[in-house]
Amino acid sequence: MKQVPNVVTVGGGTGTFVVLSGLKNYQVKLSAVVSMMDSGGSTGRLRDQLGVLPPGDLRQSLVALSESEDIWRKLFTYRFESGELLGHNFGNIFLSALEKITGSSKDAVLHAMRILQTRGDVIPVTLDNSSLCANYEDGTSLCRESDIDEYAGKSKILKMYLKPNALINIDAKHAIERADYIIFGPGDLYTSIIPNLLVTGMSEILANLNTKKIFITNLMTKTGQTDNYKVSDFINKIEEYMSGESFDYILINSTPFDKSLIEVYKEIDNAVPVVDDLQKDKYHGAKIIRTDLLSKYVFQTGKSDKIRRSLLRHDADKLAKTLFKIMSTR
Amino acid sequence: MKQVPNVVTVGGGTGTFVVLSGLKNYQVKLSAVVSMMDSGGSTGRLRDQLGVLPPGDLRQSLVALSESEDIWRKLFTYRFESGELLGHNFGNIFLSALEKITGSSKDAVLHAMRILQTRGDVIPVTLDNSSLCANYEDGTSLCRESDIDEYAGKSKILKMYLKPNALINIDAKHAIERADYIIFGPGDLYTSIIPNLLVTGMSEILANLNTKKIFITNLMTKTGQTDNYKVSDFINKIEEYMSGESFDYILINSTPFDKSLIEVYKEIDNAVPVVDDLQKDKYHGAKIIRTDLLSKYVFQTGKSDKIRRSLLRHDADKLAKTLFKIMSTR
Repeated sequence: MKQVPNVVTVGGGTGTFVVLSGLKNYQVKLSAVVSMMDSGGSTGRLRDQLGVLPPGDLRQSLVALSESEDIWRKLFTYRFESGELLGHNFGNIFLSALEKITGSSKDAVLHAMRILQTRGDVIPVTLDNSSLCANYEDGTSLCRESDIDEYAGKSKILKMYLKPNALINIDAKHAIERADYIIFGPGDLYTSIIPNLLVTGMSEILANLNTKKIFITNLMTKTGQTDNYKVSDFINKIEEYMSGESFDYILINSTPFDKSLIEVYKEIDNAVPVVDDLQKDKYHGAKIIRTDLLSKYVFQTGKSDKIRRSLLRHDADKLAKTLFKIMSTR
Repeated sequence: MKQVPNVVTVGGGTGTFVVLSGLKNYQVKLSAVVSMMDSGGSTGRLRDQLGVLPPGDLRQSLVALSESEDIWRKLFTYRFESGELLGHNFGNIFLSALEKITGSSKDAVLHAMRILQTRGDVIPVTLDNSSLCANYEDGTSLCRESDIDEYAGKSKILKMYLKPNALINIDAKHAIERADYIIFGPGDLYTSIIPNLLVTGMSEILANLNTKKIFITNLMTKTGQTDNYKVSDFINKIEEYMSGESFDYILINSTPFDKSLIEVYKEIDNAVPVVDDLQKDKYHGAKIIRTDLLSKYVFQTGKSDKIRRSLLRHDADKLAKTLFKIMSTR
């Protein structure tokens, strides 16, 4: 294939940020389809108080793809540290103001793409206002991403759904239909990846495509969401929400982690490395690629007692190289 | 004089906005030297809580001079209408974030000038953090612009000063030294014009220049600040704070106001039209220019019971035409 491949990421959050940051330096046409169900922190406050769509995940993808001058990336990641604005991210406020002025979340993102000179499109998975809900084994039902995060460890998630139903954004539909490759993960399974699959229309579109689907396995489990999940558990769960569709490629990091970092995760968050339980070269028809995908850097977490931002992360360029190799050798 | 004239406005607020909006369409080199003592509303909250310099007056001058696409002017004038951000102007938040990121109010303004593609420079009169104070006839002493505004009508202002002293910004000094024309007003005498003259170094620079100084007379008085002030009172007061320096031109609107609007001002704000008591063609050596400077539009005020934004305003283009004629016929 000599044409520039159309690549779509499906997700939101830090994992998607890393994939986009890496791939934007390669000859691919990028679109980021982004989850719109976040309801925590700065994003949740703006959503509740201003009635805007949740800006947080959009912002991260916009910054990842930005090729404008450095001050814009700094602005879009800046978080106010005092007063009424404490905890608010400037990029979130910016996107909210754009939505208020234009009266349209779609136009707000288009303006932001132009201002940030993004190398690729950032597309909300839905333009509908919808909450992410979870039913738990203990009978509990929760309907905010932030509440779901807080309920971590108390019971096991049985089923995820949106309330009310949200329809897929026509632009997301078109991007996915045009895609040569769709990349899922890394990212929180239940709060970053699956929310995209819950949008009405998404699983039907994925089932009717000939597009190659790539899954990038998380490095660590997440307490209360994916405790003790092995690689197969991640795959099986996503395939369940994709109406049984399976992946074409599964990427797994093969570099072992520093033992002291594993201890930190264990102690603070009760999280463990995702165990690679796929014994063969293939799983559900997908080709398994095991290679070094680990960043050499250990990322600082915030002042919080929880590991809210990963200490261990994928390396953007190692990921991009591996992904681009798949796309080139097809 | 065939060279493009260097024009500097000294002020801040709506009056300066009108002058700059008009003059930017003419062949002049513009610089706006802006008062940095505002402490009310959105500006005051950001100043107190984030420790930034007051962004409000800078923002208005930036918007006036902006030649970038319309969305930027909309963003910089947008005010949030609910939640924690209620009352905050987006442009103020933007300037505050820029100052936090760059660590410098000077750099923040430079970035904003580039983003907004301003046709001219916007220059804080000082980079020092200082409060505007007033001593009153009744012995009261107040040290916040917002407190001074609120004390309106209770006693007469005897003396204005800054606490602590603030040094003139070197860029403001240079702009004024290079100026062919310096324009004062229209604007609140005690809270927009005089604060600039209180900055250490300002009156000395003005006294040693051969630059033509133009005063644009306000349309209406302001309760508690300039009650019953006639044109001569404005001139005398400013000259007092300019170490006795006098103006070269005094512009006075000659078009009568709609009687019903005068009634509104009288009832709501106890404000009256500024009476033209200058009987001759000259006053303190200044040439008096009486001409139609009034906008045909009646501006909407906010939901407040006070007329916080003027109903009656100068017309930007009429002002600019008159000013440009002065500069061309010299």
